[in-house]
Amino acid sequence: MNPSAVKCVLVLLPKEMHLLMSASRGCARSGPAMAAALESLESCLERHIPPAELAEVKRILYGGEARKLDLPTAALSAAQEKGFELQGYGFGAALEQLRRPRIVRVAALHRRIEEIVGVAAMCGVNIVCFQEAWTMPFAFCTREKLPWTEFAESAEDGPTTKFCQELAKKYNMVVVSPILERDELHGGILWNTAVVISNSGALLGKSRKNHIPRVGDFNESTYYMEGNTGHPVFQTQFGTIAVNICYGRHHPLNWLMYSINGAEIIFNPSATIGTLSEALWPIEARNAAIANHCFTCPINRVGTEYYKNAFTSGDGGKAHHELGHFYGSSYVAAPDGSRTPGLSRTQDGLLVAEMDLNLCRQVSDKWNFKMTGRYEMYAEKLAEAVQPFFIPNIIKE
Amino acid sequence: MNPSAVKCVLVLLPKEMHLLMSASRGCARSGPAMAAALESLESCLERHIPPAELAEVKRILYGGEARKLDLPTAALSAAQEKGFELQGYGFGAALEQLRRPRIVRVAALHRRIEEIVGVAAMCGVNIVCFQEAWTMPFAFCTREKLPWTEFAESAEDGPTTKFCQELAKKYNMVVVSPILERDELHGGILWNTAVVISNSGALLGKSRKNHIPRVGDFNESTYYMEGNTGHPVFQTQFGTIAVNICYGRHHPLNWLMYSINGAEIIFNPSATIGTLSEALWPIEARNAAIANHCFTCPINRVGTEYYKNAFTSGDGGKAHHELGHFYGSSYVAAPDGSRTPGLSRTQDGLLVAEMDLNLCRQVSDKWNFKMTGRYEMYAEKLAEAVQPFFIPNIIKE
Repeated sequence: MNPSAVKCVLVLLPKEMHLLMSASRGCARSGPAMAAALESLESCLERHIPPAELAEVKRILYGGEARKLDLPTAALSAAQEKGFELQGYGFGAALEQLRRPRIVRVAALHRRIEEIVGVAAMCGVNIVCFQEAWTMPFAFCTREKLPWTEFAESAEDGPTTKFCQELAKKYNMVVVSPILERDELHGGILWNTAVVISNSGALLGKSRKNHIPRVGDFNESTYYMEGNTGHPVFQTQFGTIAVNICYGRHHPLNWLMYSINGAEIIFNPSATIGTLSEALWPIEARNAAIANHCFTCPINRVGTEYYKNAFTSGDGGKAHHELGHFYGSSYVAAPDGSRTPGLSRTQDGLLVAEMDLNLCRQVSDKWNFKMTGRYEMYAEKLAEAVQPFFIPNIIKE
Repeated sequence: MNPSAVKCVLVLLPKEMHLLMSASRGCARSGPAMAAALESLESCLERHIPPAELAEVKRILYGGEARKLDLPTAALSAAQEKGFELQGYGFGAALEQLRRPRIVRVAALHRRIEEIVGVAAMCGVNIVCFQEAWTMPFAFCTREKLPWTEFAESAEDGPTTKFCQELAKKYNMVVVSPILERDELHGGILWNTAVVISNSGALLGKSRKNHIPRVGDFNESTYYMEGNTGHPVFQTQFGTIAVNICYGRHHPLNWLMYSINGAEIIFNPSATIGTLSEALWPIEARNAAIANHCFTCPINRVGTEYYKNAFTSGDGGKAHHELGHFYGSSYVAAPDGSRTPGLSRTQDGLLVAEMDLNLCRQVSDKWNFKMTGRYEMYAEKLAEAVQPFFIPNIIKE
């Protein structure tokens, strides 16, 4: 067991919650997985493919070479000192006659929230989003209620929201803070919720996870239900944002409704592991950016968590103490089909992405997916399809 | 001008239509584009990345190494003789107790339909799909009605359908034949239509393109309207199939409705060019396979077509004679997130993919996207969203 890795988890938490994370209460640790040798797909391509072909490979795979941001030396040094990856990329847009560029910097983080947010601030970040249920281990694999449900807290005035409000004010930054919510207004039930805090420090609102997984060890439906906050978007000083939490990434209609409500950037705070979803990860959020003419920002945990009590996985295998390797690889995808490289698969990290939000409307006017979407037809067809005695349109010889 | 390239277009056509394709009537030629140097992304990766890392790269990019099919020597020789690429890959599934494996072989073709279908038959192909509007140059960029609308013909008893019925019977193969349809029943109007023919030679039915592009030089809305055949699926002896034509690829709801009606394989016959869509190509159909627990098979044209009369592109540039390079790259994506490599970006080719259709339900039972899809909610939300005075859910400070 690597003691510095344990420290990584502990500093994730606001001070009030540190006590919950002790070894005597089913503690989790976090560190690089044995099998996760490839630190990132993109760095592997860079290392081996000659420059002329590399440009074509990047064009086909990523929609071109992402522009590297010139990040401040102080930020780069701080990242090196603290031992985390720092990457910055920029997306452009055409100049317009009637609108000025609307430049915003967003950040995706892998772990160690407080210290990394400080570096994000040095990089001029305006909006930051943390990983799903960032204050706790992702222990839903255990199916144990205690001690994990002790992490649940009020979205409005819990310690994590207060902590994030301080961060938001201190750094003039919009903060998206995904937590396990305890809803005292409705019998103390739990939700998987993202709290959105304005750069003024004011609580803007919350957005609950709309689609709940029942796959592999992701036994989340044991803990909370499908969200009832719909598809709110938050109009911030820096742009209109929405939060599609984790498994909602697999549902194109979920992305669509955030976009129809006006989201220009949709964050996707996640917790997902290599054996389950790594081949899907580069596809889904990027497809959503394309299909909805918006930016998307999927953010994953990184490392492997350890749970004190062994659990089985419903696959005939032996009981074990780990869920699997969270493969990081957070990235930002743009409406024109381009994307940044991913953060490391194995290390803590900070990804800064600068974007001109004017690109959303420019791409929409070019491709017209909303105009050509025929949503009236689909509203009718879906309403028919959910009927218990729906008759599908099947043609036979 | 390369005479063998002209031949390529001409042999595409059933005998009855050859006369339409003469140089005196705005002929198109087809051949490799100057700029399209990289023959395929996958072969480039294979060439440069060392084996151990390549396995990881393929796992992350493609969901693993596709199993290569052992194709008959006669087919491999025929492909070599005729000078086109032949690739074969297989997708597996777990063995079940109550269902036998449902193995089917499908084929995607780049050009030279008649001779390549013969080789597909040698490879045991059960279902074949041709490229969009396969009997004609993709001349909608010109905005000229004549001579192009002369290619339109009856889906039910036009020469192309008759030609395909012969092929289907000869090779015991289901044939999906996308054409420009002339609908004599309704005033002789045009549609962009896929005709589906059973392996018995019987006409199963047709499926019209649901979403029509208004992007770049794709002036298709000048020629035909949004399809009115809904989302039919065709129950064939080899599996239940559907056809999502070209620009419908960008619309997740279009894929969804074919899937809700029961499609296990959705073909996507296309005609799209590098500068417009190449970064989107590997994403959209693959996302659809994942999101809908089905196989998808996007098929593109390959080569560059030449039009006699110059046309402008609405971008301030000079009038020119070419639409751009159709980049081929046809592939098959599986419900588990894996996919085959793409066919060549520059050459004629045949991709054979073997799949066990049992994988669709296996992945659906694992991931549950339909069960967790909340379609009732989306039916209501979409019905609200299309109202002229819809009020989006925007939260402000």
